[in-house]
Amino acid sequence: MRVLILGGDGYCGWPTALHLSARGHEVAIVDNFLRRQWDHELGCETLTPIRPLHERVEIWRELSGQAIRTFCVDITNYHALADVIVTTRPEAVVHYAEQRAAPYSMIDREHAVFTQVNNVVGTLNLLFALKDLAPDCHLVKLGTMGEYGTPNIDIEEGFLEITHKGRTDVLPFPKQPGSFYHLSKVHDSHNIMFCCRIWGLRSTDLNQGVVYGTMTDEIARHPGLINRFDYDDVFGTVLNRFCVQAAIGVPLTVYGRGGQTRGFLDIRDTVRCVELACLNPPAKGEYRVFNQFTEQFSVGDLAEKVAVAGAHLGVTIEVQHLPNPRVEREEHYYNAVHTRLLDLGLEPHLLSDSLLDSLLNIAIEHRDRVRHDGIFPRVDWRSTHNRQEAKTDAAVPVASGGPPAVHFK
Amino acid sequence: MRVLILGGDGYCGWPTALHLSARGHEVAIVDNFLRRQWDHELGCETLTPIRPLHERVEIWRELSGQAIRTFCVDITNYHALADVIVTTRPEAVVHYAEQRAAPYSMIDREHAVFTQVNNVVGTLNLLFALKDLAPDCHLVKLGTMGEYGTPNIDIEEGFLEITHKGRTDVLPFPKQPGSFYHLSKVHDSHNIMFCCRIWGLRSTDLNQGVVYGTMTDEIARHPGLINRFDYDDVFGTVLNRFCVQAAIGVPLTVYGRGGQTRGFLDIRDTVRCVELACLNPPAKGEYRVFNQFTEQFSVGDLAEKVAVAGAHLGVTIEVQHLPNPRVEREEHYYNAVHTRLLDLGLEPHLLSDSLLDSLLNIAIEHRDRVRHDGIFPRVDWRSTHNRQEAKTDAAVPVASGGPPAVHFK
Repeated sequence: MRVLILGGDGYCGWPTALHLSARGHEVAIVDNFLRRQWDHELGCETLTPIRPLHERVEIWRELSGQAIRTFCVDITNYHALADVIVTTRPEAVVHYAEQRAAPYSMIDREHAVFTQVNNVVGTLNLLFALKDLAPDCHLVKLGTMGEYGTPNIDIEEGFLEITHKGRTDVLPFPKQPGSFYHLSKVHDSHNIMFCCRIWGLRSTDLNQGVVYGTMTDEIARHPGLINRFDYDDVFGTVLNRFCVQAAIGVPLTVYGRGGQTRGFLDIRDTVRCVELACLNPPAKGEYRVFNQFTEQFSVGDLAEKVAVAGAHLGVTIEVQHLPNPRVEREEHYYNAVHTRLLDLGLEPHLLSDSLLDSLLNIAIEHRDRVRHDGIFPRVDWRSTHNRQEAKTDAAVPVASGGPPAVHFK
Repeated sequence: MRVLILGGDGYCGWPTALHLSARGHEVAIVDNFLRRQWDHELGCETLTPIRPLHERVEIWRELSGQAIRTFCVDITNYHALADVIVTTRPEAVVHYAEQRAAPYSMIDREHAVFTQVNNVVGTLNLLFALKDLAPDCHLVKLGTMGEYGTPNIDIEEGFLEITHKGRTDVLPFPKQPGSFYHLSKVHDSHNIMFCCRIWGLRSTDLNQGVVYGTMTDEIARHPGLINRFDYDDVFGTVLNRFCVQAAIGVPLTVYGRGGQTRGFLDIRDTVRCVELACLNPPAKGEYRVFNQFTEQFSVGDLAEKVAVAGAHLGVTIEVQHLPNPRVEREEHYYNAVHTRLLDLGLEPHLLSDSLLDSLLNIAIEHRDRVRHDGIFPRVDWRSTHNRQEAKTDAAVPVASGGPPAVHFK
């Protein structure tokens, strides 16, 4: 299958490209390298020393014999995107090419507007390009479980049968997103659903949970293929961040009470889920939603698990509750259905002691690269001015009204 | 009360400004005059010969003694908007300053992207300006009943109590908008709801139905205050368009079967609803939704009413069913709750024979200004390329795959 991966240089995009290439699909990557630029803006690099994309694909070609074409294109530029669609004639487009960090979108007005315009316009351009140039192509769009928020009812996969005053309909699941980023994904979902309906496009919206891990079978084949591992307060997902905090011997930072519960998945399942979606396309005109996660945990649960795993490795780990920089419920009901990908054959990699050991070991291996001032929350949901001056390691910036100073061991 | 009206030169904004000014409120208008620019783009002016804003407000000042300040500002320019907020210190901001035509948003990719970026960024800028500069100010936002689509259950006012698998929550009403324009309003609603929650802003989202009429008590006071009256296929609302078609003796153009049912209201009720919302602000942090319409009609019902009214005036009126340029249900259940504005004291001007007579008479008075080629649908929802070359009256442009040629009497 010819698959185009938008955002193929990123944390999920790169392992997805390798996974599909390894299975013989004809993979091409589109990326504008903005994610690498944001490392400079935020003053914090990926924990792992990733190579430039052109080196990565060259190493992969030598290892596997599989070529991956790459296009440096910003998909908010319609004509550049359209050229790639015409050139690569994709049967599936996997769309990761969005600003994906909730805290980044909450830095200030400019970052909020950038996030929504970048994400919404990129997706609109893609929808028009598919309609005009590849109307049978399957759009596999990365959404987020965060679109749903934390309702007091079970979360279904995209749609909900509602009976009201004696009448019944199946309607889009009501959305209560928790940041300008999450809002951008809700906007995308509505736009995509509409285009499937009026133009007969086909799309799978993967409402993904929080991803952890960095290693996949393909990435393990060569150190030059190494993937991003973000641990900072802006782009780092919570479990990866906890492992880095454990590795450098600082307390795990739990925001608020830690009862915030979310769906999680191993990055090895991310790539498999996308493959399953591609292999099983929806009908023309169908817009479907898969909830893409494998287990639910609270933030407090995860901190506890990392502390236990650390003890196995002889590391003493402290948990520190910080004032929550986000506006979110800290104790709530959460139960989200996630059966559609299992029905297609997903065999989950559940969070195990050995995975935690492996993650901790990766964090320990690269601990010298950790910037301590990149871990503590600097973006406060209640403030509209969270832009930071770049700091050295000596100073720990904190969010306004945010967490107390942290005692390093 | 100090009220800032964004989009105060437009079809609803101008009569709202006069209505509030007449009641002694301190009114200021922000407008960038894009709506007037679109007349040139589309080759079709308002039926009524409206004056420039600076003349309108001068006439109003002479008549009423009330000054209305005006600011030529595009609210997608944050700093210009912020300056106006600081200068005028509003207690309420009435936000009409959006691209409001579904067909305009469906012309092509550029118009879709423009509509969503313009509307979403303008509203985001306003939310940030209120948070930083006027946190107690009441945002009165014009949404649309079209956000809901046509679900097979009763439409509630913004929120719905849902019981699912034995648990209950009150959640945002699921949205199924029918154009890139309607989608932009759904995006706005989600953004506003979020900002009320995290920042404690207060907002009323007025999900307005289709407005008809052009005259209010204030506008009737002087011909120089005359309001827009759009009848073209892009900006004309259906009842106004039917009256113009009757006036020039061409068939009323019903799209498809005509069973499309919507909420409607008289423009005199628009201005009163906005006043009621302003006079009864929500609590800090509250996001509330009022369904702002007074009666439901199907498009076929309205055509029938205009035909009957025409007969009273001695005009014979034909109804022509055109292939529907939109993708929408043409026969469907529709029942939308609209009690919250009535509870606040709205006394509706229901659609009567005399109102129809008056509308028809206005259309007849200005019939020489009608451009025949501006009435028939030129924008096909199924096409992504609906941009038209400007035409003379001799040629009637039709949407691709659209309606057959029309026989003028």
